[in-house]
Amino acid sequence: MVTQVIVLNGGSSSGKTGIARCLQAILPRPWIRLGVDDLLEALPPSVLDSASGVAFGQRGEVTVGDAFRVIEAAWMTGVAAMARAGARIIIDDVFLSGAASQQRTRGYLAGLEVLWVGVRCDPQIAAAREIARGDRVTGMAASQAETVHQGVVYDIEVDTGHAEPMGCARAIASHVA
Amino acid sequence: MVTQVIVLNGGSSSGKTGIARCLQAILPRPWIRLGVDDLLEALPPSVLDSASGVAFGQRGEVTVGDAFRVIEAAWMTGVAAMARAGARIIIDDVFLSGAASQQRTRGYLAGLEVLWVGVRCDPQIAAAREIARGDRVTGMAASQAETVHQGVVYDIEVDTGHAEPMGCARAIASHVA
Amino acid sequence: MVTQVIVLNGGSSSGKTGIARCLQAILPRPWIRLGVDDLLEALPPSVLDSASGVAFGQRGEVTVGDAFRVIEAAWMTGVAAMARAGARIIIDDVFLSGAASQQRTRGYLAGLEVLWVGVRCDPQIAAAREIARGDRVTGMAASQAETVHQGVVYDIEVDTGHAEPMGCARAIASHVA
Amino acid sequence: MVTQVIVLNGGSSSGKTGIARCLQAILPRPWIRLGVDDLLEALPPSVLDSASGVAFGQRGEVTVGDAFRVIEAAWMTGVAAMARAGARIIIDDVFLSGAASQQRTRGYLAGLEVLWVGVRCDPQIAAAREIARGDRVTGMAASQAETVHQGVVYDIEVDTGHAEPMGCARAIASHVA
Repeated sequence: MVTQVIVLNGGSSSGKTGIARCLQAILPRPWIRLGVDDLLEALPPSVLDSASGVAFGQRGEVTVGDAFRVIEAAWMTGVAAMARAGARIIIDDVFLSGAASQQRTRGYLAGLEVLWVGVRCDPQIAAAREIARGDRVTGMAASQAETVHQGVVYDIEVDTGHAEPMGCARAIASHVA
Repeated sequence: MVTQVIVLNGGSSSGKTGIARCLQAILPRPWIRLGVDDLLEALPPSVLDSASGVAFGQRGEVTVGDAFRVIEAAWMTGVAAMARAGARIIIDDVFLSGAASQQRTRGYLAGLEVLWVGVRCDPQIAAAREIARGDRVTGMAASQAETVHQGVVYDIEVDTGHAEPMGCARAIASHVA
Repeated sequence: MVTQVIVLNGGSSSGKTGIARCLQAILPRPWIRLGVDDLLEALPPSVLDSASGVAFGQRGEVTVGDAFRVIEAAWMTGVAAMARAGARIIIDDVFLSGAASQQRTRGYLAGLEVLWVGVRCDPQIAAAREIARGDRVTGMAASQAETVHQGVVYDIEVDTGHAEPMGCARAIASHVA
Repeated sequence: MVTQVIVLNGGSSSGKTGIARCLQAILPRPWIRLGVDDLLEALPPSVLDSASGVAFGQRGEVTVGDAFRVIEAAWMTGVAAMARAGARIIIDDVFLSGAASQQRTRGYLAGLEVLWVGVRCDPQIAAAREIARGDRVTGMAASQAETVHQGVVYDIEVDTGHAEPMGCARAIASHVA
């Protein structure tokens, strides 16, 4: 079975995007990168920073309402359709609800061959990297580092606190069929 | 018939993105913004700057090869699926091949209610705005300004050389069913 | 007397940066662009979003405290030193206190040949452009559009509601000695 | 003697900016961050990508001509003046000519108390991080990794291949007087 979708799940500042770019560079065929940040970028202001949409709290907590969920469902349906139409897709995601998020994602990707990857990073390391990046709401890294993995089942897990992005990508690539 | 997709077609630096943001702000329901720039951002380096992918010439000319067309087809299929799943979508595009591009796009969006919008801008004005932006390859604005509209049929056309982005958005919004 | 510094003063989203880039493109000698946004980017988080530093309110109001003023003074002293050392500098500024800001800036630039430029834009137009840009705190454009010009004396004024960035740049360039 | 300037020298993608942001977060007083990237951003197009200015080659090599050197001299004179006026400054630099670059920088900063920091990173690790970042010309990291340190004398050296940005920042902070 040929891998059609790679799902990278990890907290903010865990290093998912760097791994995704390395995967694009080393995998023999072209893969496209899509993620929740792209969806956030596409949203109208009315859905960002509203209770029914996505709200970012002062301490980095992210809450998600029904208006966002409706759009996310349509967006994920489309991403799955891209994969079914032949695009190889690396999805860069943050499972805010852990196992429940994976369940939902599994539904959208039904029938596709998915490689589930956990991108772990010690909360303290992620929090320090969030400071080093300087472009994220402080607190997101620490608050998401462990919760996003709760109950989630993976094909492979990598830890960016112990390996470089390229090393993680190589480990993942060896699981891509 | 309720409008499901708004396609904004215009050359580089014609002002499409600004109009799309204004549309998001004034339309009563949430619309998401997707465009060829998002696809380019998602591509692997092997497809960017290669003869079979997308190549940007020294004078702003853009050439597109088969490797890109294959991915674009899957991507557009997915965008259409998002719209069929209920997302309202503003597509920010550059019809490099004019009528042939519209034909191809029409195919991907089959069955959806589409509002076709031409975003015109005098080549000289667009070229000067390209300098003012400072983040685009010089020459793209002038070389695309007129060719992208050749043979394309619109429901409405706006000219950003004669109206502000918000004014253009208001004119377009009055055609959204 | 050869112009050594061009000060562009205008509210947020009035179009100063676009004019500055056009000036760089059309002026015969090399000019460098520096502005209050560069200073903000250089600041530590402790000075951003603090009462004694720079604080951005929910409605776009900007308040500036002593900790910021101390750093700004050293920064402007350095920018003036660059000009005295031979760099031609376009300063992109927002005179939050109108005439008092100009007075302070005049002090820093003492002995240098300065061209003072007012970049005007109707508050409603600037507010709509702020929406079209999508990367600024909503409300800044409207709240600054007129206050930043109060009591300020210019060598030339341009209005980006009535002319393109390049047209404004040409008008300014004709005053550069 | 109180430290007035911290110079971080290292190749592209060695991690200087992350360390600088961490230093800003942990040092008790406000420090501002300025670097060669800010100067590049401020330059006119005529100085970028020209033989007499700064030219970026296909393999990541950077060549610098007289027109750039003249502006750089004025810019560094101004940065030194900011420090003399009381701003604490972290300079993020790339000593393309190694010892000769340090000599030149030492001249600009004459009379100031400077902490010289070498930011080392194994060329292979830096090259892989360049891929993970995805926003730099490929090859810069590898070509600069070792040459920028040739003959340069430091107060402290850190290695981002063996420590996180925050760990490096803590080591440096303990040397800030």
